[in-house]
Amino acid sequence: MPPAAHPLTAPLLAGNRRALAQAITLAESTRPDHEAQAQQLLAEVGGQRKQTVRVGLTGVPGVGKSTFIEALGVQLADAGHRVAVLAVDPSSARTGGSIMGDKTRMPRLTVHPNAFIRPSPSGGTLGGVARRTREALLLCEAAGYGVVLVETVGVGQSETQVAAMTDLFVLLTLHGAGDELQGIKRGIMELADVCVVNKADTDPAAANRAQSELTAALSLLTPHSAVWHPRVLQVSSVSGAGVDSVWEAVQAYTATVDLPAKRRTQTAAWFDDLLREVAWRNFLQQTDAAALARLRAEVLGGTLTPVQGVSRLRPPESGPE
Amino acid sequence: MPPAAHPLTAPLLAGNRRALAQAITLAESTRPDHEAQAQQLLAEVGGQRKQTVRVGLTGVPGVGKSTFIEALGVQLADAGHRVAVLAVDPSSARTGGSIMGDKTRMPRLTVHPNAFIRPSPSGGTLGGVARRTREALLLCEAAGYGVVLVETVGVGQSETQVAAMTDLFVLLTLHGAGDELQGIKRGIMELADVCVVNKADTDPAAANRAQSELTAALSLLTPHSAVWHPRVLQVSSVSGAGVDSVWEAVQAYTATVDLPAKRRTQTAAWFDDLLREVAWRNFLQQTDAAALARLRAEVLGGTLTPVQGVSRLRPPESGPE
Repeated sequence: MPPAAHPLTAPLLAGNRRALAQAITLAESTRPDHEAQAQQLLAEVGGQRKQTVRVGLTGVPGVGKSTFIEALGVQLADAGHRVAVLAVDPSSARTGGSIMGDKTRMPRLTVHPNAFIRPSPSGGTLGGVARRTREALLLCEAAGYGVVLVETVGVGQSETQVAAMTDLFVLLTLHGAGDELQGIKRGIMELADVCVVNKADTDPAAANRAQSELTAALSLLTPHSAVWHPRVLQVSSVSGAGVDSVWEAVQAYTATVDLPAKRRTQTAAWFDDLLREVAWRNFLQQTDAAALARLRAEVLGGTLTPVQGVSRLRPPESGPE
Repeated sequence: MPPAAHPLTAPLLAGNRRALAQAITLAESTRPDHEAQAQQLLAEVGGQRKQTVRVGLTGVPGVGKSTFIEALGVQLADAGHRVAVLAVDPSSARTGGSIMGDKTRMPRLTVHPNAFIRPSPSGGTLGGVARRTREALLLCEAAGYGVVLVETVGVGQSETQVAAMTDLFVLLTLHGAGDELQGIKRGIMELADVCVVNKADTDPAAANRAQSELTAALSLLTPHSAVWHPRVLQVSSVSGAGVDSVWEAVQAYTATVDLPAKRRTQTAAWFDDLLREVAWRNFLQQTDAAALARLRAEVLGGTLTPVQGVSRLRPPESGPE
């Protein structure tokens, strides 16, 4: 006799918002029994092969991320799409509040019947937050949210993590002088499938310049897809002008790229990341922490080479020292 | 009674080239007794605190890396510097010959009494090649080579590895239309402390354009140092024009940046990389390879989530399943 289905499975698959919120709470919990329940749920709902699109988003503070997500999300939700918004923000525990926690920043989307907004899981390492966000993403899709927007505040490697769990990555920028654009973090431009010059209406000439500069900069980089060339678009999130062009780019992208293959690659990478996490945890459990700290100090002090330091950790394998 | 010093230690410290070549051969060997000897040597010579500069170099094939290294190397060697050239090329075994193996590509530097050229250690994983190159670098410095140029052919993550073992990173590019510049690999521009537009004399107008474009592109990125802003320079390696400006940039960089702190950070990162390698090796030893392959297939097939797949590898810790 197979084990009984989890009580949240049926309402989740029926698109019940409360069930989805509860399921994500289980996935975010660090209690072993919750974790086991979340894995059961994920296994039970994971077989669903719905057509969905996962969009990663980033941009420096002040670029207007919330306003843009609200504009895009409301437009999609009004058109009948079910839209979920998630966030990866490993700093949210430290700063005392998630960027997304304040739902008043997306007042229209928050109350839209077709939208689901979830604050970032607070605290934990980036790896932990990213893992829980991945699981939340799968749960949202199981609940029928065909568009999932995953926002990152750009702490540490969070963009790389978000790019690794989404189908395409949108970089929000501002027009303005080079100085303003210099907020773009190292490596981020390389992840971008779509660049958005936000608040374009406040200075059309500057927005045109920014669009040209970003286009030129992107053209210097080898595209990371053989079939997709990054687009640079102008948007005014407040008036809504240009927001549809972003969605057009998303659709053009998904029509061009082999998404199933991309997702299989991402699943494999996720599995490998988890294996390395396990390997590292096992290693730390099997290793004398005080001895490790001593060796590290000697390596940094220059009395041992890194290779020597590491080799002294290993149990002697054979022969005299 | 302390153990006897390795027989290569004294001649190595005296700057003997043959001793250096033999020491690097030990470091490159995979025989455990050679490895132990190399570690003894590194420990014995590692205390030397000579003033040295480590320059990483990359660029797509055809950009003129060998000609540039020869031009820069000969200029420095003529001025009395002792110059070592190393290469990181994990593909050298596959392609049947190291990029640096053919010393005829640097005919003048090869025979210069102040220069030491070492082909890339062939074969092995990138991690292995990078580790052996790091050790070769330390041995070159111990032998009195104050300038070490580490070249990479840009396979996989080799630039990141070279950037992690050098003080500054030079990206060689060509002038020409966007198409030609598009050979720049993702993420590489972000690593560059100095960009060199090579073969500038063949089309001065195009070289000026390339310099402007690269300068604009770099200005969009957050500099990875608070005190150093990347420079873009024009060079003709054949005539030697501009080669001195690259060396000036290297000197300006080393005068600006806190090199000892940077090297300590790099040593710590190297140690941590090695620890993770050990952790992964231990994990694979402790894990049933067939079971792992089965779980991976199930994860990729969608019948298990990545978290479930990984959790089934762990020995049961407590309580009923």
